Amino acid sequence: MDQDILYHLALGSGSHDLVEMFGDVKFVCMGGTPKRMEQFAYTIMAEIGHKLPCGTTLQDISQFSYRYSMYKVGPVLSISHGMGIPSVGILLHEIIKLMYHAKVREPVFFRIGTCGGIGYEGGTVVISEEAVDGALKNVLDVTVLGKSVQRPAKLDRRLARELKALADPEDPYDTVTGKTMCTYDFYEGQGRLDGAFCDFTEADKMEYLESIHKAGVVNIEMESLAFAALTHHAGIKAAVVCVTLLDRLKGDQVLAPKEVLDEWQQRPTKLVCRYIKRYLQMKGRLSLDGHGSVAVKSPRRFKLVQQESENYD
Amino acid sequence: MDQDILYHLALGSGSHDLVEMFGDVKFVCMGGTPKRMEQFAYTIMAEIGHKLPCGTTLQDISQFSYRYSMYKVGPVLSISHGMGIPSVGILLHEIIKLMYHAKVREPVFFRIGTCGGIGYEGGTVVISEEAVDGALKNVLDVTVLGKSVQRPAKLDRRLARELKALADPEDPYDTVTGKTMCTYDFYEGQGRLDGAFCDFTEADKMEYLESIHKAGVVNIEMESLAFAALTHHAGIKAAVVCVTLLDRLKGDQVLAPKEVLDEWQQRPTKLVCRYIKRYLQMKGRLSLDGHGSVAVKSPRRFKLVQQESENYD
Repeated sequence: MDQDILYHLALGSGSHDLVEMFGDVKFVCMGGTPKRMEQFAYTIMAEIGHKLPCGTTLQDISQFSYRYSMYKVGPVLSISHGMGIPSVGILLHEIIKLMYHAKVREPVFFRIGTCGGIGYEGGTVVISEEAVDGALKNVLDVTVLGKSVQRPAKLDRRLARELKALADPEDPYDTVTGKTMCTYDFYEGQGRLDGAFCDFTEADKMEYLESIHKAGVVNIEMESLAFAALTHHAGIKAAVVCVTLLDRLKGDQVLAPKEVLDEWQQRPTKLVCRYIKRYLQMKGRLSLDGHGSVAVKSPRRFKLVQQESENYD
Repeated sequence: MDQDILYHLALGSGSHDLVEMFGDVKFVCMGGTPKRMEQFAYTIMAEIGHKLPCGTTLQDISQFSYRYSMYKVGPVLSISHGMGIPSVGILLHEIIKLMYHAKVREPVFFRIGTCGGIGYEGGTVVISEEAVDGALKNVLDVTVLGKSVQRPAKLDRRLARELKALADPEDPYDTVTGKTMCTYDFYEGQGRLDGAFCDFTEADKMEYLESIHKAGVVNIEMESLAFAALTHHAGIKAAVVCVTLLDRLKGDQVLAPKEVLDEWQQRPTKLVCRYIKRYLQMKGRLSLDGHGSVAVKSPRRFKLVQQESENYD
């Protein structure tokens, strides 16, 4: 190919200098809505002390795709993936190609999401050990040229353990690990009784939810299977961190007030921020200034930041 | 249930008077992006001569869901469904429930989309006769409580014929009918060679595309299977009208310039507008004024409009 058009990102290898734009990326963070991922971009910017040039603000890089939103904060990309396996799948294909074109080596991918808990109250943070489908199979089934192909939906166990270790015992909520079930539907596919249709009873539903609970499933959402399978197939280290919005063993509807839901959604963000901050600190790309706040040293600005530091020391 | 929270629409039967808000809806139009569906809302508003009260503008009703965008123009809802079967599936469950709560009788649903053509050049309008999956099965497979359930993915044949009859012979493009293939993936799932991974050859791909072409498939997209199956299961009359962005027998990448793609995307819109306009005219809810422009008579405003007409006649 002369050029590669990343259609759903409104980027292309011919029209954009992807190495210049994205060559310094280390972390790719994805989540459902444009709003949440814009907020994540500003949160991580504050956390790692990333400074924008005077008179500039963050811009949605994929604004004109009208599909996904993408923000870049130094080494961190924050991107909305929409809802469901196909939507996150298209994004992963194009982001993996983007990483290739930008010559990024060993990026780490996070999905920061929401989910239903199985035996866990709303507000619990769940780190996925692996993803399974609605029939408990640990594979993503892709129909390729009319034939079914299975891709293992594996996540990086070490990364999951490292994230778990970053949970603060003083956090006023639990952070747990376990299997994540990923479905193609939110209502019937997750055993909800409150969809437009339902051909099963409350008893059937509870029997099913109890059975997956026994099989080690701690939460249900709609993207982890593709996220795990495609990153694993590409050899990319990846983790899924979600917050539960309700305990499905106790109901179907998301009843918590908006402010509570908003606060809960900050929780997976906090954990991923801690990981990124610690990584940058260990690599010497983050330094505490005299006031306890931090500043990220981007490789390109390294000299400048060093000089500034000398002036302030 | 005390109340039904339509979580992904940011609406609820307890918090909103859904009959008052949506009781006069007749047409539900869906398409991928918020942008396109906002444009559709303004287009249909002009086409049916719907007037907003002085000092008002359209508002995204589902703005605070951060998931879908929804605009209401008199009897027409215009809603973005995102990408893929799970995303359109969640929306359909909640919109079907919304129609029920609003006591809407016999609504008509349209999907206005984009697709890849099979043997048709970019810019061709395709009206779907039925939807098939990647293995040519005319069913949506839903995993319910761990078991596979098949739902026929049927569309209203008469509605498809009526739409076809509204294609203008003077349109500078073709309007065709046929089977629509619906896949869970844009790259490997549609036999593209340009995804992040590809384990097949150009020859394998062409053999597959030729075989589905012979089986009557005229286009490929990612939502029609759920759209057809869920509306059919609910007994709702529905049609899928898409424009091709390229001929997949000639390539994989969407190469046409943005302005051309934008113009192509108006084409299915035009056809659906003609249908809605003709329906409202036949029902006497649309009247030509002396200047050839039209005004919709909403049942609530009927008396007022009649009086105004008398004054102007």
